[in-house]
Amino acid sequence: MPITAYSGGTSLEGQFRSSPVGGICIDMGGMNKILEIHEEDSDLVCQPGAGWMDINDTLKEKGLQLFFPLDPAPSATIGGMLSNGCSGTNAVRYGTAKAEWFLNATVVLPSGEVIKTRRRARKSSAGFDTTKLFIGAEGTLGIVTEVTIRLAPLLPTTVAVVHFPDVRKAAAAVREILNRGVGIECVELVDNEFMRATNLVHAPAPPRYPELDSLFFKLQGPTPASLAETARIVKEVVSKPEYGGSGWKLAKNDEEAADIWMDRKNAHYAGLALLPGARGWATDVCVPISKLPDLVYETKKDIKDSGLTSHIVGHVGDGNFHALLLFRDDAELAVVRDVVHRMVERAIALDGTCTGEHGVGMGKKEYLYEELGEGTVELMKAIKRTIDPLNLFNPGKLYPEEKDSKHPRP
Amino acid sequence: MPITAYSGGTSLEGQFRSSPVGGICIDMGGMNKILEIHEEDSDLVCQPGAGWMDINDTLKEKGLQLFFPLDPAPSATIGGMLSNGCSGTNAVRYGTAKAEWFLNATVVLPSGEVIKTRRRARKSSAGFDTTKLFIGAEGTLGIVTEVTIRLAPLLPTTVAVVHFPDVRKAAAAVREILNRGVGIECVELVDNEFMRATNLVHAPAPPRYPELDSLFFKLQGPTPASLAETARIVKEVVSKPEYGGSGWKLAKNDEEAADIWMDRKNAHYAGLALLPGARGWATDVCVPISKLPDLVYETKKDIKDSGLTSHIVGHVGDGNFHALLLFRDDAELAVVRDVVHRMVERAIALDGTCTGEHGVGMGKKEYLYEELGEGTVELMKAIKRTIDPLNLFNPGKLYPEEKDSKHPRP
Repeated sequence: MPITAYSGGTSLEGQFRSSPVGGICIDMGGMNKILEIHEEDSDLVCQPGAGWMDINDTLKEKGLQLFFPLDPAPSATIGGMLSNGCSGTNAVRYGTAKAEWFLNATVVLPSGEVIKTRRRARKSSAGFDTTKLFIGAEGTLGIVTEVTIRLAPLLPTTVAVVHFPDVRKAAAAVREILNRGVGIECVELVDNEFMRATNLVHAPAPPRYPELDSLFFKLQGPTPASLAETARIVKEVVSKPEYGGSGWKLAKNDEEAADIWMDRKNAHYAGLALLPGARGWATDVCVPISKLPDLVYETKKDIKDSGLTSHIVGHVGDGNFHALLLFRDDAELAVVRDVVHRMVERAIALDGTCTGEHGVGMGKKEYLYEELGEGTVELMKAIKRTIDPLNLFNPGKLYPEEKDSKHPRP
Repeated sequence: MPITAYSGGTSLEGQFRSSPVGGICIDMGGMNKILEIHEEDSDLVCQPGAGWMDINDTLKEKGLQLFFPLDPAPSATIGGMLSNGCSGTNAVRYGTAKAEWFLNATVVLPSGEVIKTRRRARKSSAGFDTTKLFIGAEGTLGIVTEVTIRLAPLLPTTVAVVHFPDVRKAAAAVREILNRGVGIECVELVDNEFMRATNLVHAPAPPRYPELDSLFFKLQGPTPASLAETARIVKEVVSKPEYGGSGWKLAKNDEEAADIWMDRKNAHYAGLALLPGARGWATDVCVPISKLPDLVYETKKDIKDSGLTSHIVGHVGDGNFHALLLFRDDAELAVVRDVVHRMVERAIALDGTCTGEHGVGMGKKEYLYEELGEGTVELMKAIKRTIDPLNLFNPGKLYPEEKDSKHPRP
């Protein structure tokens, strides 16, 4: 009997919750306890249904200056984040789920055996990293029942926003800023359409932002002096004539910082304001960062030529962006599918990936042979067959069938 | 025919180079080219025999403000570092080989098939992380022939040293400093015996350091102002009465910083000065950081009770330390073995690992069942059998035989 476990939502929520071949769906959402907090070790043991925002709220309530820095969608849970290999706006500073935030996982294998991948030390060279096998496996190799996560010090932050003549100049400024090594927790690229959508959300108030390609920064530093120095350096860089940043706005206090950052976080709902009655399809390609401007330009041209409405939000420090493509009916949905297909092909041709952080699920299986090559996909499938020979766990996800492949094997 | 590939040395050099069952040893050292430098993406493509220090020298010669931040032994090569799952003094700031420094690897599988684990984008959620399968697999799953590594901005640094009444107070100070979020690139714990050894190396000059448990810091910051602020905060914390730090010395310039840091880097050779004519055995346990002081105290007592000479150097921000145990003959070597065995048992009992960064090889296979549990070890072995059914690649390493196990399977 096929078994699909899920707990709360990541971006893949819908995909995790449904099984294309029927069978049992196990809701792990009730296993949402924090089991141990080790303040002195900056780690925490919890169940898979615990939400990252709830964990961070709990740490705050206890007065601990620690937080879990992976920040996907607000409803995401630790089990889903692990299984998805998630990231988010903080990845430019803290890396993704595939870094070292998951110290170990307790996993029920398809055989019924329960294993714990590692102990609680921060580092280990005791063999290859079995924790990582389950990160990004989308529940196909095991059901996660307990996780030890590493925490980071919670630092003072502030927020700034600045506007650019175009995406290329914004991306170039980001590169210089990151290479300066100042305290950047997040740097988010948004396009003119995003700004238009955000102004619509705030209407009938006067437009909050110029409708230009822009960057939202979350700056961090251990002291007010270092935070002020970071802001000064970032402002200095973006204002260079070669980048042409304008309208620099630094939050005056925590309330204003939260207010500005909320505009960025509200991207999905703001986007829907661009086309009343529409639904949105969020894309997720990722490329080497030098390729990002070309990809954004070609994609925006394709979107325009296709007659679609869209905005773009990008984790520009990682080369990952999301276009929100709007559609109102099946005809427009078909156009969206074509645009997405071309975008993925374009990203792969630029040495990129079909999914920077949202996962494969069912929708992107068809691209894996092209992106990773036959040998790498067959390696994944061989490991899947070894661990789950009866194909019990979350069948139909992640691993492309040969029939789906553009490069069918003989 | 068994095949063991190696290239230059990590701490595992001897182990990689020898095959306990004979067969072919392939020297990858000639494949030491840097193939592509992508300055705009902060990444670099190279062959496995390229040394990390050579790579960093090349980047410096080209005037690029970038470096590869994993810093194991100076002779280590990229292929060895990947296969070992290495780390070093920079891990407290940059994480280990198991983080996201290896973007992809081209690997020859035992089947003869050549795969590339991923493309060059910084992030991807396209399935589980096959790059990570090979990190720490010690050459047992494939031969790495090309790697893309991610680079970090090279920042100004300085060095400081400070002395403490005992290890526990030093470790507590480290915890507070790390939680302040200031720019700590390295923080290294050394014991009184290390300081004695270092003074011996500099003799007949007057003693350079008080012979007390101490911390060596490498501080980093984007500007002189932030570096000065970091130094001020670190000095303020270590000097608190509850930690009792004394003799704070901050390098006055780059030359002095390099000179002080060299004392830390010279740990192995300085240690040998403690007992003329001796050889040294370096241990490598790692535990949750709150357990480190207890482990150090019990280990030092055991060393003393056993009549051995030793010093201790620890990556205190990661809970990992190395005792250099000295021996002059087989009788002393036997005592060393017993001390190491008890140290590993103690570390595992404290939720730690037999190896924080040196790897398993042949010497630590016997501990894996106890440390990881039978199911996790059997999972590793099942994957090994799937990828290398004829046990061709580096046989006899990493995976414990059942006969080695303390928990033999029925």
